[in-house]
Parts: sequence; C-alpha cells; structure tokens
Amino acid sequence: MKLSIDDITHRLEASPFNSWLGLEPLALEPQLVLRLPARPLYEGRPHSNILHGGIVASLVDVACTMAIIARTGGTVATIDLSLDFLRPARIGPLIATVEVLRQGKTLATTQTRITDEQDDLIAIGRCALKLIET
Amino acid sequence: MKLSIDDITHRLEASPFNSWLGLEPLALEPQLVLRLPARPLYEGRPHSNILHGGIVASLVDVACTMAIIARTGGTVATIDLSLDFLRPARIGPLIATVEVLRQGKTLATTQTRITDEQDDLIAIGRCALKLIET
Amino acid sequence: MKLSIDDITHRLEASPFNSWLGLEPLALEPQLVLRLPARPLYEGRPHSNILHGGIVASLVDVACTMAIIARTGGTVATIDLSLDFLRPARIGPLIATVEVLRQGKTLATTQTRITDEQDDLIAIGRCALKLIET
Amino acid sequence: MKLSIDDITHRLEASPFNSWLGLEPLALEPQLVLRLPARPLYEGRPHSNILHGGIVASLVDVACTMAIIARTGGTVATIDLSLDFLRPARIGPLIATVEVLRQGKTLATTQTRITDEQDDLIAIGRCALKLIET
Repeated sequence: MKLSIDDITHRLEASPFNSWLGLEPLALEPQLVLRLPARPLYEGRPHSNILHGGIVASLVDVACTMAIIARTGGTVATIDLSLDFLRPARIGPLIATVEVLRQGKTLATTQTRITDEQDDLIAIGRCALKLIET
Repeated sequence: MKLSIDDITHRLEASPFNSWLGLEPLALEPQLVLRLPARPLYEGRPHSNILHGGIVASLVDVACTMAIIARTGGTVATIDLSLDFLRPARIGPLIATVEVLRQGKTLATTQTRITDEQDDLIAIGRCALKLIET
Repeated sequence: MKLSIDDITHRLEASPFNSWLGLEPLALEPQLVLRLPARPLYEGRPHSNILHGGIVASLVDVACTMAIIARTGGTVATIDLSLDFLRPARIGPLIATVEVLRQGKTLATTQTRITDEQDDLIAIGRCALKLIET
Repeated sequence: MKLSIDDITHRLEASPFNSWLGLEPLALEPQLVLRLPARPLYEGRPHSNILHGGIVASLVDVACTMAIIARTGGTVATIDLSLDFLRPARIGPLIATVEVLRQGKTLATTQTRITDEQDDLIAIGRCALKLIET
C-alpha cells in the first residue's frame, strides 16, 4: 500500500463531491472498506425511504477507484462502470467492500459489494480503470 | 405519454436527491432530454475541474428511468446500469438524451447519451428497468 | 434444487449450441460448476493460442442461466450480460463457478467466475435474468 | 481506414472460431457491418428456434473489435463487454452495425447494434478495448 487510511480520509475530504457525500474509510487491508452515512437527502423516489440509485453508483465509483489509488498512490480514471441493484437500499448507512480483480501497469478491474447494516447485499458493481502516472 | 413536461418537473422536484441535483427537463418528445446544471460541488478529484463519475451516473439513472415513467405514469426500479465514460466531463452543464430501446409490460431497456455544451459525447449509459404498477 | 446434475447434463446435451460447446457439469451444490473443454476451434485471433471472447461469453451465459434453471426447473431468459476479461484465456479447459446474487419470483441476478486449470481468474460476468414459468 | 473489406474477410477467415461462425463483412464505411448466417446449430434452448445468447455475444465481440482493427491495422484486446438482449433472436441471419464511440491512442469504446432481417433491434452491446501495437 502506498497510502495509509489517513491519506484516504484526506483524499476523500479534499474532493468536493466525496466530501459532501460524507464517505469514511473503515479499513484498508485486506480489502478497502468505505462507509456512506444515512441522510434523508439521499432519497430517490419521494417518500420511498429508498436511496437514489445515483448515490449507490457514486459509492461504487469511489470505492472501485480508491482501492487502486491506495495501492499506487497515483490517479485513476474510470473507463466504465456496471452496477446491479439486488435489493432496495433503505435509507441507512451503506458499507462498500472492494475486491481488486486485476491490477496491471496501465489497467485495473475492481468489484465493490454494497451491504447495509444488516449485512444484506444491496448492490454489486464493477469498474474498469485506467491508471494515470502522476 | 402519460406525463407532461410539467409533471416531470414536479416529480424531479419532489425527489430529495433529484431536487438537490437541480435537474430540469428540456424536452419530452421525440426523446426525453434532461439538463444538469454546473456546480463546483459536483467536482470529483480536487482541482481537476472534472465532474465526479457518480454525478454522471446519477444523471444516467434518472434519465433512463424517467423516460419510462413519462410513458407509463407509474414507477420503475433500476435492475442494473452500465456506463461508459468517453471523455472527461469538465464542470459545466450536461445534457442527457434518452433512447427507449425496448418497452414491454414488465421490463424496459433505455439508453442515455450524455453530452456537454459543445455537444461532445461525454458518456453513454444503459439501464434495465422493472415496471411497477402503482 | 429442482434439477439433479444428470438433469443438467441432459439439458445441456439437448441444446444444439451447448452440446456443440461440450459443456459438462462438475458440481451443483453449494455452487453450480461447469467445465468447457479445450479445442483448437475455440481460438480467436489466429495463432494467438487465446480463446475467442465469444466462447468465454457463451460459457458465462450458460452458467448464469443454468444456476437458476437448476433451482426452479423452469426456463429463464437473459435480460443482459456484462463480462470483464481479466487475463488472456489460453486454449485449455475453463471452469465456470456461479454465485446466485439474488433470486426473486420473476427476476434473478447471477455472477460467474471463469478460472483456468491453474485456478487463475480469467474473467467474471454477471447476468440479469427473467424467470419464465413453464 | 488501414484495412479494406477484403482484408477483414481474410482476418475473419484466418481466425478458427470466426471462420466457424461464418461471419461476412457487408460494409466498412461509414460503419462496419457484419453478417452472421443462420444455422440450426446456433440454437440455444432446444426446440426454441431462438439463437444462443453466446452466439449473439460472439457477434458483438467480433464486430466491436473489428471496427477498431479496420482503422488501426493493429490488434485489440477486449477489456469488457456489456450486452442487452432486447428481443428473442429467432434463428435467421443477424446484422451487426458498429458505432465507434471513442478511439484514443491506447483505448477505444465501440457499440454494436444487432438487427434481424426485418430490421428489428435484437440486441445492443458495448466493448471497452485496449489497442495493442503490432
């Protein structure tokens, strides 16, 4: 690992949208784990008590990219993202756990599982990433 | 069409996160067109002047689902979403234009093209949707 | 499980393209495991010794759908498929292992990991499926 | 274009699996168009008269990659593929038409629409590609 968990906290806080989301790293090894707080503003359909799909997608994108950034200390760009919604994500904290499926010199693929506080699997997403030297 | 462009405006404003995003419908036929405003808070990597991937994903999710909601007047749930990032999305307004690829009784597939103010294609996303009667 | 491993063998043999592929079930529980034999005809780029991506995609599609068919005894239709190629698949037998991420009354999502004889992860794919009563 | 339509024919014939599939290029500009012949062996579920999803995926993979190969004369590797099945593909010839969404120095994204003889849209697929110098 090139970054510590404190480095990741600082990186998340320095990003305007990540800071707004309130993301917090819980663990770095053996897998990166991020936590998204519960907020009424994250609701999608009114009075549904269900998180907006874009909030879940944002969490996947950050988790998938940050897992590689933590290893390289550099920068990555998301080439593409695919995301399966498995259960409605009720308003509540979400946990993102990342598996690095492949890491090469210029490309990587990572997969993030999103669970709720009951440890139910809410969504699963994958990102193909381009590694950028900095 | 079951909904008018005013109905879509009201639906977007009633949703906490869609309202926060500031989404605005520009056209309904022949294709639904939504506009996302430019805001510094949407930035991802600090000082990059590039939109967070989750903001682009949120726009795709809303556009893909709203195109079907406009036709049925009902509700939809996103089964899955795939999103290809084609060019960095500089901070600035984005336009989402939706193509309905298939609409059945219980399932639909829609595709959204995201362009910037120069009409450059920034991203393309597809959603599989479950239609829910209300 | 509604089907036995013998039932799966018969279903695979009854399908013209699955039979041609030479697919063979190795296990049914706790996860469905299928084996694809090695054949020179599966090569993609000439003289590359690498399997055609379509062969890997075929294996993912069959594995993802058969895992649900084994549980329901019915029929399924693939709504969509996403597939990440992680390492070049050299000509040789491949093993597909399926995880059922979600199974509802009308929809399911399954994920298949493709490994080679050295147990290296070659590809990972997900399918959204529509369950059809028969 | 670095390749002619005859070059593409030769490349397809030199590949064991592409040759077996019987793929034929119909046009190169403004978009690459490939034709897959109808064969009973391409059937998936027995007596369904419906093409195997893996056959459709194979056609998407070849079309998406060949569109870039035709422009560069080099080689490409598929990073990932996503494919939405919109209508059942009855046994019959299929036409694949490719749109190059982005072509950079090292990466490209292409999208393939699969239509049947009635010009109905059967499936749509996208590939992220890595360009390899040769």
